[in-house]
Amino acid sequence: MPVSDDQRAEIAAQRGSSRPTRRATVEALEEILYEPLPVLDHGFVRVVDYMGDDAAVVQAARVSYGTGTKKVHEDRGLIRYLLRHRHTTPFEMCELKVHVKLPIFVARQWIRHRTANVNEYSGRYSILDREFYVPAPGHLAAQSAANRQGRGEVLQGAEAAEALEILKRDAETAYDHYERLLNAREDGTVLDEGRQGLARELARMNLPINFYTQWYWKVDLHNLLHFLSLRADAHAQYEIRAYAEVLLEVVRRWVPATSEAFEDYVSGGAQLSRQGLDIVRRMLAGEAVTQPDSGLSPREWRELMATLGRGD
Amino acid sequence: MPVSDDQRAEIAAQRGSSRPTRRATVEALEEILYEPLPVLDHGFVRVVDYMGDDAAVVQAARVSYGTGTKKVHEDRGLIRYLLRHRHTTPFEMCELKVHVKLPIFVARQWIRHRTANVNEYSGRYSILDREFYVPAPGHLAAQSAANRQGRGEVLQGAEAAEALEILKRDAETAYDHYERLLNAREDGTVLDEGRQGLARELARMNLPINFYTQWYWKVDLHNLLHFLSLRADAHAQYEIRAYAEVLLEVVRRWVPATSEAFEDYVSGGAQLSRQGLDIVRRMLAGEAVTQPDSGLSPREWRELMATLGRGD
Amino acid sequence: MPVSDDQRAEIAAQRGSSRPTRRATVEALEEILYEPLPVLDHGFVRVVDYMGDDAAVVQAARVSYGTGTKKVHEDRGLIRYLLRHRHTTPFEMCELKVHVKLPIFVARQWIRHRTANVNEYSGRYSILDREFYVPAPGHLAAQSAANRQGRGEVLQGAEAAEALEILKRDAETAYDHYERLLNAREDGTVLDEGRQGLARELARMNLPINFYTQWYWKVDLHNLLHFLSLRADAHAQYEIRAYAEVLLEVVRRWVPATSEAFEDYVSGGAQLSRQGLDIVRRMLAGEAVTQPDSGLSPREWRELMATLGRGD
Amino acid sequence: MPVSDDQRAEIAAQRGSSRPTRRATVEALEEILYEPLPVLDHGFVRVVDYMGDDAAVVQAARVSYGTGTKKVHEDRGLIRYLLRHRHTTPFEMCELKVHVKLPIFVARQWIRHRTANVNEYSGRYSILDREFYVPAPGHLAAQSAANRQGRGEVLQGAEAAEALEILKRDAETAYDHYERLLNAREDGTVLDEGRQGLARELARMNLPINFYTQWYWKVDLHNLLHFLSLRADAHAQYEIRAYAEVLLEVVRRWVPATSEAFEDYVSGGAQLSRQGLDIVRRMLAGEAVTQPDSGLSPREWRELMATLGRGD
Repeated sequence: MPVSDDQRAEIAAQRGSSRPTRRATVEALEEILYEPLPVLDHGFVRVVDYMGDDAAVVQAARVSYGTGTKKVHEDRGLIRYLLRHRHTTPFEMCELKVHVKLPIFVARQWIRHRTANVNEYSGRYSILDREFYVPAPGHLAAQSAANRQGRGEVLQGAEAAEALEILKRDAETAYDHYERLLNAREDGTVLDEGRQGLARELARMNLPINFYTQWYWKVDLHNLLHFLSLRADAHAQYEIRAYAEVLLEVVRRWVPATSEAFEDYVSGGAQLSRQGLDIVRRMLAGEAVTQPDSGLSPREWRELMATLGRGD
Repeated sequence: MPVSDDQRAEIAAQRGSSRPTRRATVEALEEILYEPLPVLDHGFVRVVDYMGDDAAVVQAARVSYGTGTKKVHEDRGLIRYLLRHRHTTPFEMCELKVHVKLPIFVARQWIRHRTANVNEYSGRYSILDREFYVPAPGHLAAQSAANRQGRGEVLQGAEAAEALEILKRDAETAYDHYERLLNAREDGTVLDEGRQGLARELARMNLPINFYTQWYWKVDLHNLLHFLSLRADAHAQYEIRAYAEVLLEVVRRWVPATSEAFEDYVSGGAQLSRQGLDIVRRMLAGEAVTQPDSGLSPREWRELMATLGRGD
Repeated sequence: MPVSDDQRAEIAAQRGSSRPTRRATVEALEEILYEPLPVLDHGFVRVVDYMGDDAAVVQAARVSYGTGTKKVHEDRGLIRYLLRHRHTTPFEMCELKVHVKLPIFVARQWIRHRTANVNEYSGRYSILDREFYVPAPGHLAAQSAANRQGRGEVLQGAEAAEALEILKRDAETAYDHYERLLNAREDGTVLDEGRQGLARELARMNLPINFYTQWYWKVDLHNLLHFLSLRADAHAQYEIRAYAEVLLEVVRRWVPATSEAFEDYVSGGAQLSRQGLDIVRRMLAGEAVTQPDSGLSPREWRELMATLGRGD
Repeated sequence: MPVSDDQRAEIAAQRGSSRPTRRATVEALEEILYEPLPVLDHGFVRVVDYMGDDAAVVQAARVSYGTGTKKVHEDRGLIRYLLRHRHTTPFEMCELKVHVKLPIFVARQWIRHRTANVNEYSGRYSILDREFYVPAPGHLAAQSAANRQGRGEVLQGAEAAEALEILKRDAETAYDHYERLLNAREDGTVLDEGRQGLARELARMNLPINFYTQWYWKVDLHNLLHFLSLRADAHAQYEIRAYAEVLLEVVRRWVPATSEAFEDYVSGGAQLSRQGLDIVRRMLAGEAVTQPDSGLSPREWRELMATLGRGD
């Protein structure tokens, strides 16, 4: 994780200072505030600010004059009720702001979640860092044969070694040429006084999408949970899932009752279709339903059986 | 402003307690946190939470590891530059949450600003308060003759007296009948044990749109400024402008450099059209431009002359 | 349904004229284009325009150069796959525009769906119609005792008669006084030359929320389905559900494959929680699970048993 | 512009077929429907669908039962009034859908406009094309010395030649290695039966951001105009401006009255600050204002003088 000494000092300065506030605070989140939580080979997530806590969800749901909270177990019960019945607006009343360092191809998936605020480091204005993502050997997966949008087994031997070699070498070369185009080094010093250097907004186009960028990302709790339901999921690409899992840990610290309800009702549950529900009812009534008489396609049948823990 | 003793106690309890935080804090805003700021005859705005300050705008614009701030005048300069050049995303990195009590017809204008989070008091679930808006005599304006969407002179004498009398009496009758329909008083006690009472979600339909509702409203600073540019403006209906002006005071406390830039570049400035700009250029070059040779309609000409302080 | 002769003529003129287009068209939707579909006592939904069809979903999912369609059953299969796996963006590529006449209290629920475009008839600018909603006797429900946000049995006898009488009389009086305040009749003619009349934006505040307003509403198919999943649902207030059900019929005409998939995977299915799923697995394995050993609250247990069709 | 014979045939098939519709149509836009309009070296914009026309803006503003239009010059007047006074919602009632082929770095700027619908070609699922952007020699600009986020003079001679050589060679090498990683050619044929091939979602990370991607993009007219006001502007990077200018031509065909008003009141006009307005008033009153006594910084003074056509 590429945090320079100057940056570490800035972070330490922020962590070292404290002020009184009348606002809701969350100790478990204050503990890790500003600290870079490592992700992938050079990325991180840093919680930079937050608004609200579990009680703020309750307070908004009750449109309360005070904190809105009653007994802890009543608050927890209300939060579970709200999430179970898709009353999502109270969860929009909490907000999280993070500083993220992430590969460009991950940023391109992430940005599709539109209901959030983003400020990205500008490659028009600044020189980008020499930092790029190379998968760890255990994540160097082959194309899945069964699922066009998925990964199969991990590559081994010479094919794996060559893949890593290509990714590293091409990235290094691309950055060397980026400097050559800019006529400047990473730190801004000029390479050759006799040349002008290509505009930064153009030179950057030589860099591959495994280069790291960074941004500030701010999102409300409801939209963050929606992001996690899609990106902390087995169908998501591993690299964005790695970020989502760190954010899920942040959510557990920040709003424990909400994250528990989320894991019980959303991420840990399952949606049954009209047909799937009918099959479950028939099976519970003692009928031995099989795929051919289920009305489902073989694929949907397999998915349903997996959901019901009958993976045969 | 109808805050009950219990509610005052809840507010006092929140104001009385304080905790340390590593987050950005704004003393001038902490001072008024949770306090109801009165608006109209029974409404209020209460700041319930906030995220960020002027420095957070700078920090996001720089995608910074620390606070992002340099010298105060450099930060102020950057904020002015960002606002002048419509780099709006850094202003989305600050967030405000308010509890608002407001007439339903104001709520209906307000809610058109979609980029915000809202939790409204539910008339399906709860009994609404006996509180309705009646204009102060100085705001009891006649229909404008010149502008179909505007107000003219203030009504006087018998017409004014009758208007106030109608508004009050109809609202009181409507609420009496609301209780009758509910078969319950404002405090929930049953009126007549022999009756069932109409569902709350139906009974409320008897109430006029000058009745007060309340909600939690959460918005980022960029969208709040946009709201203010439209609603703290002379074209807005007086009643929503009253709320916008209180919010503008809140913004001045919260982010003084941003609010100064907003008032210099947005709300205090003016947009000239292509034709208007051409006329200004001709006038500055010494030409005596008149409406007939301006190419503008009489209405646009009047608007331009008013902007240029040449109201003749 | 209060459509005047002039309005009928305008509608007929639009329906009578036809032009060639290279765009996707849907005959079943063209058939009802512009026609007011009645809802409640005075409301309607009129489809005013649409963009795309089932094939447009496929086309966008494939980022296709042509129509994107292959065989009909392959397209249907892709649409089902997309909806089942929450790939929602292709459904955003279809758009519907409707003109709706609806009571203000329904409009206030509807507008909470923020991802849509709205243009509402302005009570600041124009005089509102003398039209208000009164429930049909069969919908005059009592407050539910079991569910604070719900309806119980239908009121009968004297209580029902009085409720209807109150709602009608108060609405008529409110409108009479609205005219008196305006010093104008519904058609704009002046009542008394010696009076000024209160500004329209103020006089309207005397009207109850069962008065009808109208708007143009434009929404993409994904967000329309989300609206329907919440508002064509048994938990929604009857009055907005009446509109949602008409819109569901429109969707069936417009995009039959999508609406079928929606009814199979979303509105007709059910979400099981982590605990609920575990209980189903135990039951399918032959265990006789009861509420006390289920880990669920009595309420959640009842909800689960109802979902599984074991309502005892 | 890389449209294959098969794709041309698909486009021709769509252009060749026509159906009757009762909806609003725009002949000038039908003329170019589906045709790829070339942008940069390999990109294009293809209008795929549209909803509404100038009259639809008027119709929505009037919440009309018919087309809403009166005389042509009255409609034009209303459109100008709406745009001048920032009544933006009626412009949201028109919608455009385009298929765009664009370099990844342009896509990354474009996607920041969040109020739009997007479906992008998936590099997880499909093999990307061997197509990348290389600037024409006339656009190979040096970094601006005056403006960190801008371009200076065009590079000449050996420096220019080397830049073009680097960009081309690195892109070709990156694509060769992408095929090697995939163990497949652009057309999907396997390279070496003895290898597995890296997952598509991983192999793509070797490609630079000048490679082309493509998407369907759907946006309402108000948000499209906002996009154009920022991206068809001199401050925008040339490459995205090239797309914006093509879209501006599309808007001129589609809604001529709206685009005229947009160019008069928004893109062709100027926003004066409070201080700038005050200076104009003083100058019009005959005062010889200079920068030192203007209260403006030298930079803001230069910007104001440029706006006023007094560039000295």
